[in-house]
Amino acid sequence: MLDPRLAADSHWLADGPLSQLRLMDDLRYAWLVLVPRAPGAVELVDLSMQDQRLLLAEINQAATLLRAGPCEKLNIGALGNIVRQLHVHVLARRPGDAAWPGPAWGHGPAQRFQPAELERRLAALREHWARLTQDAA
Amino acid sequence: MLDPRLAADSHWLADGPLSQLRLMDDLRYAWLVLVPRAPGAVELVDLSMQDQRLLLAEINQAATLLRAGPCEKLNIGALGNIVRQLHVHVLARRPGDAAWPGPAWGHGPAQRFQPAELERRLAALREHWARLTQDAA
Repeated sequence: MLDPRLAADSHWLADGPLSQLRLMDDLRYAWLVLVPRAPGAVELVDLSMQDQRLLLAEINQAATLLRAGPCEKLNIGALGNIVRQLHVHVLARRPGDAAWPGPAWGHGPAQRFQPAELERRLAALREHWARLTQDAA
Repeated sequence: MLDPRLAADSHWLADGPLSQLRLMDDLRYAWLVLVPRAPGAVELVDLSMQDQRLLLAEINQAATLLRAGPCEKLNIGALGNIVRQLHVHVLARRPGDAAWPGPAWGHGPAQRFQPAELERRLAALREHWARLTQDAA
């Protein structure tokens, strides 16, 4: 069961071995979120080591996906101060983006995609993810 | 070779299998940093999978250390927008802390420990870390 705030702020992209991969609806950044299908999980370190390693592999794939676009620096974070359901952010950052060089978390309101642009973005990311996960299989 | 900004802002606590564990010199938070001994490393996902798993184990131990004190929520982050040398933050956050519920990164200037308090804190953390790593061995 996805937290309603995560559901409202992001869109489903794909299901990995452990997590749902989602795109944050904020055109200021290329911003992915991994949400493990682990009921009640709050802290990354409370997952079993096996699940943590699955999540780590998914983080690597999300990073590969983001690096296909503009990416000066990856930012990876598990915060959860507001939304407790365990989720891991993987973002592509670059000089001049809205929050550079500060963290993107909590930096002003999201700028949402227009519907057509969102659909194009989601389709492109899903296709790329499918290729990545085929290569890894 | 430790980045001079990391060296100036934090203090050596212990050496793990992959990383140097350091305490950030900021009494507003219980804030640890892991710095892998991997020359030139910038992104977590560029480490070998073996080294990433060592780092993951160290993150788990750092989290155990922090949870011995006040900790409502762990925050784990690899940003590096300013200091490029790969380093992973592991912080204990709690309601009412200086940046709650926002990220601690980039939130105002550090409040440094007084020397005597710093020495007490470092000694206590080193002793606790030594016990943890003995238990894990």
